[in-house]
Amino acid sequence: MTDSPVGDRGHQPSIFLANSCLFMSLAPWRSPLARALHRNRSRAESRYPQLATVRPDGRPANRTVVFRDFWADTNCLLFVTDARSDKLHHIAQHSGAALCWYFTQTREQFRLSGELRALTADNKKAAEIQVRYDLWHRLSDNARQQFAWPSPGQPRVATSYEPTDLSESAPLDTFAILVFDPDTVDHLALKGTPQNRWQYHRQSDRSWQMLEVNP
Amino acid sequence: MTDSPVGDRGHQPSIFLANSCLFMSLAPWRSPLARALHRNRSRAESRYPQLATVRPDGRPANRTVVFRDFWADTNCLLFVTDARSDKLHHIAQHSGAALCWYFTQTREQFRLSGELRALTADNKKAAEIQVRYDLWHRLSDNARQQFAWPSPGQPRVATSYEPTDLSESAPLDTFAILVFDPDTVDHLALKGTPQNRWQYHRQSDRSWQMLEVNP
Repeated sequence: MTDSPVGDRGHQPSIFLANSCLFMSLAPWRSPLARALHRNRSRAESRYPQLATVRPDGRPANRTVVFRDFWADTNCLLFVTDARSDKLHHIAQHSGAALCWYFTQTREQFRLSGELRALTADNKKAAEIQVRYDLWHRLSDNARQQFAWPSPGQPRVATSYEPTDLSESAPLDTFAILVFDPDTVDHLALKGTPQNRWQYHRQSDRSWQMLEVNP
Repeated sequence: MTDSPVGDRGHQPSIFLANSCLFMSLAPWRSPLARALHRNRSRAESRYPQLATVRPDGRPANRTVVFRDFWADTNCLLFVTDARSDKLHHIAQHSGAALCWYFTQTREQFRLSGELRALTADNKKAAEIQVRYDLWHRLSDNARQQFAWPSPGQPRVATSYEPTDLSESAPLDTFAILVFDPDTVDHLALKGTPQNRWQYHRQSDRSWQMLEVNP
């Protein structure tokens, strides 16, 4: 997990995007999610949801990630990760992923289910290169340093790491982006008697259907 | 998700337990986890980790749960759930589960991987009945009421629910317990330069091996 999130700089310029994240109108769950992010903004953890993937052995894995931004005018969420981390191996076999986002102040939970893919130094499309370079540039220097550390999860090789002189503009090869494209969103609002819950399902024409469900 | 957790009343009396949760000495990850729970106790969310399971279609699911307690003198964690919820269907096919626990105040993450099983009204072993009855008794009345609500996740059938007169001692059939038996634990401490990370693996003789790894 890289350190504290960079500030939002709003959406990226609208440029040519990869197929899986088509231009589209904002999904109807974007508005309650944006409201939750705003109302919980005083707490750093409001940008730290938990991301589940499936391991090659069929077991789930779950870890905290830092939400960076939406990708341009799409409903795809962006995270950064180390290209040496296990989750890249997981999504190479099972691209399904589930994000659980609990907002402590407003007591709301968003559960997003969808497909996850990685953008690495191997991705050559202009939009993919641009988003990777842009998120690298927006990292703090401390966060960038972590991508120069020894391989995460391997036996510890040093107690301290000397800072490396890193470019602000050219990402290390260890720097990867996760693009999460949700097709189902479940929003539970625990405040209120009784609680309230809504589900959003993406249709085959990429429109969204909302259903109010029992909490 | 049921409402705020009940207070800890310490461990249960040592009684005969189901096979999957054998008596054992406390695992070495229990001490740092107990310390994190203690140091973050002023924040309600310190007892709300995220639990991932795998759906029948192979995709992961992820939701917030309320940590209730450890089961007696075992290293198994207890959660309560609605017997009508999707996760019971998931674990009937894939018992693997992953718990991600982020402590906001001390900036520590525990990732626990293991096997999950449910205790429902159908379980007839004395220890299973006792833990289910005990956790029902320890719920707040508001939390108990939720088990009398219409089926969660189904289309909303009412805007308000009349309180039901419920026994404090006899659980409803909708009340189920999740027993999570971890075999791998990953502890990441984000405070410190650099960060620190340890992994714990349960061995075939049920002892635990600890390894310090790169963060």
